[in-house]
Amino acid sequence: MSKLHAIIPAGGAGTRLWPLSRKDHPKFLLDLVTSGTSLLQATALRLAPVAQSITVVTGLKHASEVQRQLQALVDAKRLPDNLPVAVITEPAGRDSMAAIGLATYLLSRKYGDEAVVGSFAADHRIPHAAVFHGSVRAAIGAADKGYVTTIGVEPESASTAYGYIQPTSEHVTEDTYLVKRFVEKPAASSAQRYIRAGYLWNAGMFVMKAGVFKQHTAELHPDIDRALTNIADSWRLIEQQEILAHEWKTIQRIAIDHAIAEPVAAKGGVATAVMKDSGWTDLGDFDTVDAILENEPEHATHVVIDSENTVLRVPSDKAVVVIGIPEAVVVDTGDALLVTTRPNAQRVKEGVDRLRDEGGERFL
Amino acid sequence: MSKLHAIIPAGGAGTRLWPLSRKDHPKFLLDLVTSGTSLLQATALRLAPVAQSITVVTGLKHASEVQRQLQALVDAKRLPDNLPVAVITEPAGRDSMAAIGLATYLLSRKYGDEAVVGSFAADHRIPHAAVFHGSVRAAIGAADKGYVTTIGVEPESASTAYGYIQPTSEHVTEDTYLVKRFVEKPAASSAQRYIRAGYLWNAGMFVMKAGVFKQHTAELHPDIDRALTNIADSWRLIEQQEILAHEWKTIQRIAIDHAIAEPVAAKGGVATAVMKDSGWTDLGDFDTVDAILENEPEHATHVVIDSENTVLRVPSDKAVVVIGIPEAVVVDTGDALLVTTRPNAQRVKEGVDRLRDEGGERFL
Repeated sequence: MSKLHAIIPAGGAGTRLWPLSRKDHPKFLLDLVTSGTSLLQATALRLAPVAQSITVVTGLKHASEVQRQLQALVDAKRLPDNLPVAVITEPAGRDSMAAIGLATYLLSRKYGDEAVVGSFAADHRIPHAAVFHGSVRAAIGAADKGYVTTIGVEPESASTAYGYIQPTSEHVTEDTYLVKRFVEKPAASSAQRYIRAGYLWNAGMFVMKAGVFKQHTAELHPDIDRALTNIADSWRLIEQQEILAHEWKTIQRIAIDHAIAEPVAAKGGVATAVMKDSGWTDLGDFDTVDAILENEPEHATHVVIDSENTVLRVPSDKAVVVIGIPEAVVVDTGDALLVTTRPNAQRVKEGVDRLRDEGGERFL
Repeated sequence: MSKLHAIIPAGGAGTRLWPLSRKDHPKFLLDLVTSGTSLLQATALRLAPVAQSITVVTGLKHASEVQRQLQALVDAKRLPDNLPVAVITEPAGRDSMAAIGLATYLLSRKYGDEAVVGSFAADHRIPHAAVFHGSVRAAIGAADKGYVTTIGVEPESASTAYGYIQPTSEHVTEDTYLVKRFVEKPAASSAQRYIRAGYLWNAGMFVMKAGVFKQHTAELHPDIDRALTNIADSWRLIEQQEILAHEWKTIQRIAIDHAIAEPVAAKGGVATAVMKDSGWTDLGDFDTVDAILENEPEHATHVVIDSENTVLRVPSDKAVVVIGIPEAVVVDTGDALLVTTRPNAQRVKEGVDRLRDEGGERFL
């Protein structure tokens, strides 16, 4: 079985986790779950056992911190010496299709079209790594047979915060299934229906041969194929920066889900490996991170009265009293303060947008 | 008509206004309503037009700051040169009967038993001073006739945060009435009934001749009378501190309401002057101060979404986002943070008690 060339697009700001997550300190660079590593580092460490290379795609602004964090893992011998780790810098964020496409086109130059690549978010959490590794191996099996293979997460609840994958009962390999379609974040009633029908959470993990990805891109998005080919052709030439800057601007801003996964599923080209009991979460908002944050040691000067399931992330040397707000979310970073409730956790983005509009740009 | 010897007991910590109000910076020393003066200063300024002397009774810990604040008003010519202003230091807080009694016994030595004294909380707010002055003058009229006279506040709502005064329809003077009884903070249903029956809020303001106060004390609390007499006898003698320290410990901890007002009302000796449309509030908790705090200028970096009637007191240079908590109370002083709602405002004391119990004494 092939080993994986892992791609980690590290771009999202994690606006819903403001004020922990900021423009200059986005979610993936943070030790959000106080595990001793950033989410990006945890992602690299989790991939290492199944990867033969790791490529992180990130923006100019974060490239040096990404480098530093990865180098720290190498220096601490937590990543194997013989595992190639590369950082590719995007001139600007142009959504996941551009980022994953750039890495895939470059990897195919180096390792060939039969090489299996896989994309994994830089800022998710999967506590049970062994389960994840099993699912990746299953996905590689289907990828070897030519499928775009997604790792579908067996749902723990009828969440409306995630998109869903509708699998068929038709096997692609012993432990993967043909996918019928992808669906967007649903309303609560649809989510209930999806769960009963055996749908999976779409965690945005895609595993496929580099050549298969390129072929779908050429067919579905010839302009993107042309741009990425030009960029890859110029890579490490004197003209690289110029061509990258020029072509990058022409690439459509589109998520890989819409660009590849959905249309390819429609023509029967997508498989899924089911990941079960992995504890996966996307740590997308303070409702999601709650279970993790509440495990942090309690401080004597933090008093919570009649406020069940509260998410409290405040300086340990600050006196904090919360009274009578069940499911409260209180996050104090010194220069910024968020007060809301878990049911409103997705709306933090609204608050951040308002802050920007009203002259608070420096706090984003 | 007599002018008033005003007594201002300045002792309460204002625990329900934590973390604005602290042990070392109690409510009465704060400019809680951002008016440019502390509540104590505002009280002295409000009393000056009707007073022929002002005596503040406070604890050792706050005596120098009280002195400083009063001196600042004299220096700024905001208090008349010829108005005697004195600060008396209690060895320890022993509730309002001891504090007001000490001042009254001393004032009677200097100005005689016919002198009219009046006690006024150091930390209330009365925006319409002219209305207050009218009520004080009415109270002095009844005091001159030998009554313990309270200024009753015409209620704006069926509040359960205040005690009530039940007046009769029997006139004592043209603009004062005989009081039937005092009642403690009621349940909501009783409060409604009190309002319909024309009860008044008890704002803790008592005006009476010094001699009348001494006579009631001698009759109802001979031990207190003896102790205060001994203290007054030794005042300005070499033995003063020794006798004060000794006798003070013997004085029962009791509020003037229970010690004098209630039993004297029962025997027909209490009158009330009604104070109407004065805007009086005791600023007792963050629900009460709400109307005042919300008038502070809004800062661009404070964003409040779907959180009507929110009380926000946070640093102006801090980014603050509040989402989806109607009647939220958010108070951030840098070293301490309170998050609750207006209906829970009275419970802030519980939070402060917990903080003390759990080792957060330094934040009180």
